[in-house]
Amino acid sequence: MTHTYNISPVYSVKQKTFFVICKVCLFILLPSICYCQQKIEQWNRFETSFTYNCKTNPFTDVKITATFIHQDTTLTVEGFYDGNNRFAIRFMPEKTGAWHYVTASNIKSLDNQKGQFECVKADSNNHGIVRVSNTYHFKYADGTPFYPVGTTAYAWNHMGKQLQQITLQSLKGSGFNKLRMCVFPKNYDLVKEEPEIFPFNATGAEKNAEGNQRRKWDFSTFNVAFFQTLEKQIDSLNAIGIQADLILFHPYDKGRWGFDSLPMDVNKRYLEYVMARLGSFKNVWWSVANEWDLVKYKTHDQWLDLAKYIYENDPYHHLSSIHGSTAKYIEYWLPYFTHASIQDEASVMHWGAASILRNAYQKPVIYDEVGYEGNLLQRWGRYSGEEMTYLMWMGAIGGTYVTHGEAYMFHDAGDTIFWAKGGTFKGTSWKRAAFLRKILEAGPGPLEPADISRDMQTATAGAGYYLVYFGKEMNKDWFFNLPAKNGSYARPVAGNQYKVEIIDTWDMTVTPYPKLFTTGAEDDYRFYDKDMQKLQLPMKPYLALRITQIH
Amino acid sequence: MTHTYNISPVYSVKQKTFFVICKVCLFILLPSICYCQQKIEQWNRFETSFTYNCKTNPFTDVKITATFIHQDTTLTVEGFYDGNNRFAIRFMPEKTGAWHYVTASNIKSLDNQKGQFECVKADSNNHGIVRVSNTYHFKYADGTPFYPVGTTAYAWNHMGKQLQQITLQSLKGSGFNKLRMCVFPKNYDLVKEEPEIFPFNATGAEKNAEGNQRRKWDFSTFNVAFFQTLEKQIDSLNAIGIQADLILFHPYDKGRWGFDSLPMDVNKRYLEYVMARLGSFKNVWWSVANEWDLVKYKTHDQWLDLAKYIYENDPYHHLSSIHGSTAKYIEYWLPYFTHASIQDEASVMHWGAASILRNAYQKPVIYDEVGYEGNLLQRWGRYSGEEMTYLMWMGAIGGTYVTHGEAYMFHDAGDTIFWAKGGTFKGTSWKRAAFLRKILEAGPGPLEPADISRDMQTATAGAGYYLVYFGKEMNKDWFFNLPAKNGSYARPVAGNQYKVEIIDTWDMTVTPYPKLFTTGAEDDYRFYDKDMQKLQLPMKPYLALRITQIH
Repeated sequence: MTHTYNISPVYSVKQKTFFVICKVCLFILLPSICYCQQKIEQWNRFETSFTYNCKTNPFTDVKITATFIHQDTTLTVEGFYDGNNRFAIRFMPEKTGAWHYVTASNIKSLDNQKGQFECVKADSNNHGIVRVSNTYHFKYADGTPFYPVGTTAYAWNHMGKQLQQITLQSLKGSGFNKLRMCVFPKNYDLVKEEPEIFPFNATGAEKNAEGNQRRKWDFSTFNVAFFQTLEKQIDSLNAIGIQADLILFHPYDKGRWGFDSLPMDVNKRYLEYVMARLGSFKNVWWSVANEWDLVKYKTHDQWLDLAKYIYENDPYHHLSSIHGSTAKYIEYWLPYFTHASIQDEASVMHWGAASILRNAYQKPVIYDEVGYEGNLLQRWGRYSGEEMTYLMWMGAIGGTYVTHGEAYMFHDAGDTIFWAKGGTFKGTSWKRAAFLRKILEAGPGPLEPADISRDMQTATAGAGYYLVYFGKEMNKDWFFNLPAKNGSYARPVAGNQYKVEIIDTWDMTVTPYPKLFTTGAEDDYRFYDKDMQKLQLPMKPYLALRITQIH
Repeated sequence: MTHTYNISPVYSVKQKTFFVICKVCLFILLPSICYCQQKIEQWNRFETSFTYNCKTNPFTDVKITATFIHQDTTLTVEGFYDGNNRFAIRFMPEKTGAWHYVTASNIKSLDNQKGQFECVKADSNNHGIVRVSNTYHFKYADGTPFYPVGTTAYAWNHMGKQLQQITLQSLKGSGFNKLRMCVFPKNYDLVKEEPEIFPFNATGAEKNAEGNQRRKWDFSTFNVAFFQTLEKQIDSLNAIGIQADLILFHPYDKGRWGFDSLPMDVNKRYLEYVMARLGSFKNVWWSVANEWDLVKYKTHDQWLDLAKYIYENDPYHHLSSIHGSTAKYIEYWLPYFTHASIQDEASVMHWGAASILRNAYQKPVIYDEVGYEGNLLQRWGRYSGEEMTYLMWMGAIGGTYVTHGEAYMFHDAGDTIFWAKGGTFKGTSWKRAAFLRKILEAGPGPLEPADISRDMQTATAGAGYYLVYFGKEMNKDWFFNLPAKNGSYARPVAGNQYKVEIIDTWDMTVTPYPKLFTTGAEDDYRFYDKDMQKLQLPMKPYLALRITQIH
């Protein structure tokens, strides 16, 4: 349209004035018309980029940030070098409406670049980023509850492409909504595969401290292709509704690549780069480390320093935690940690322990490692499917969350043990995890102990809504009874009527019980049925009851 | 001696010179001779006082502190008004040798008063103040381990003198070494007695907010007699080896006296006065509150503020914690709290839970309330003696400490329920507490889980020293076996020889087992006897084994 300005026939003053007004209008409207074409859903990713040919090191010598402005909200994000002279800025808008941005850079042509986009309401499949809710729980930004039912596949993303596809298919067909996975590859007795690409660029070979030959890395640059691949993997998880609980450091290197012993300045540059690239991914959680205390090359204080660095530099404040070895906790009360990510089976093996850490930390607790269903020689890798399912329910009934894991190896280390490499699920508990998630999502809200420290089998999710879990007990019958206390909710009273469903957590069935029950008078901290009616139960372990008030 | 100066016969110059020298010598030596007579054992109490007739309010209008100096150690303590124009300074010296002091005051005659005393080595019955040791435990200042085996008698000190004497006799004949007790009297369904004296002076009567008549207190003065009595009570506990876990605030007032709803400035003046009087008592622990969250009139932040006030104003840093209602925790990680004082039976009812909070807080954990042996209608007051004993052992085996309590009421509220009023023990678990203490003290050090989160029955206290607790299990026999892990200590190896003693925690017997056992090769995280020998066990609950390496 602009070329029409350049023709100069003879016009009247009136006509000229008209053209001037047109020009002004165009000048005002044109950018907004163009930019308005760029519509970004809430919590989706806006990306823009700028070309600059950096003659030195584009990773370290070019600084670019962008400040995004929406009415009274302002966020500044780091840009990053994406290879091929391309400097990119990514941003996750949370609020609908017009967003403007302006860049800042030490390079003149990248500095003070402006633009805008329109953030539109998310569609019904996009619930947004997950955040802490109600002290002990999580919800998506749109208010939908998020009950973490996760599994682990530490190095799935470092395996061959075919296996990665199989893993994604397996996850798609599962009920999992969270996956623990590592940025750095894993070198472990049961995972020895050499990845095709690495986060850093190799510049040759060197002998390490132990005298072994290993690659020499250029820690001043990143391997852009590696991160582009990681992003596709995380987007693939997002497409199937899975949160990537991204493990940023881990001890399973043992001198092979040296990624567990990077200097602190490299660690922080790596974190900065990861956050610049992935901060705008709504399904990313930061897990500062797996088994932090087993990393020889970092001190406890350095871990806190790295966690703090993330907290201070992630403008979105993604969910963030850190995971230690068995019963090795860290200062989860610090603001850097949105929740406690714990390895400790003691918390869910017996009644009543799961809630303890919830009460202590006043944060959501995810038992991200309590052992795995499997057949490994290692004791942590040989739970039955029943045991793994039991542990997940023990966590849930205490108002916490237990991450599933599977470690079957039927032949040799070439087996794709899901816990390590992904592949297909070979166990039995993964389906029960999906069933548990359905039960949780069918409730009116998250679970909490109804009568803390006294009734360890009854969880409440509101007035007149209970899950009673019997664990390994086998009962022929059960006196209908409810605790007089009801967590933070309204207590039952005499005369309430309830329907009961028998949940078989193993057979994954929900069977309505044919009778209704009515509470009598409170008796010794409980409400029994007014006629002391019993439920008949099928003498099986792993049963639960869903009790719902109807009057 | 001084009157000899005043006689004036005729002497020669030589004689006069001699007298002058004598006088000077006396002047120099006299004070040190006098002061040297004052010898204070380490951790015992030095006290000095000054007379001053304050015409206004001696509690608020006179400030006096004293700074005590010992080589490079300097501590400043608050003085206090003790009635009868007496302003006292108390001090607990920890280091042997000469201590000097100098006062500071807004009253000239109390200011810049100097003195000294000699601190001498404690005798063998005086182990000093108790402090945190080895992260999770306690020891006396002289290095003797202190294993808290406590009980509770909240208001024993507010009962009549005769009952107080009975209580002291009961405690003397027990094995307890810690007592939870309240400064303020208790108004509770089961404790209604009106004390003879109160911490504040009554000035009349008034109607409270609920319209009830109650005393009007003068919060600008303290009742000196009350504190003098409290001090005698605490000294009496010290004489029988008991730490006074002194509860500074509590909710059991309910408008009767109003001590739960004092303004914050009065709360702090009260704390200042308590610390000035009792800081020098080596057997005092501060318990900022009992069931803090049940006090209507203070916020969570005010509790932390009071805990901080104590921390910042107690020059000795006595052990200090705060206690909430069931499963109600607070920020025990703050430096104001030397240990966690918890009410939560969930932590000790089932295997493996006790250690969780130890791991979380990295501090000693005392489960100061897990319910009581007794026969009350309230569910927290009707454990069997067996159950109370079981809970104490469950805590011990997890490397933590469980406080005993007894709540028997055989007739009516006039019964002296020990938990509330003291008196005599009527239950069965108090003797088992003493037995547990003996077992703990006989070991080489404090207990910790040998194989955390996996073997929940085996505690270690060093290389080659184990306690295995079977809880409610009844076993006919038991394969001799030890975990391959051994906490923070050296692990067992094949060929170690062990003796075993069967501890009956209920019958309070220790029976040497007639056979020795020798470890074979490690098998699946355990060491069994090389000949797979079993111990024969007497098919009773509440048994434990003490396993000691002899070669």
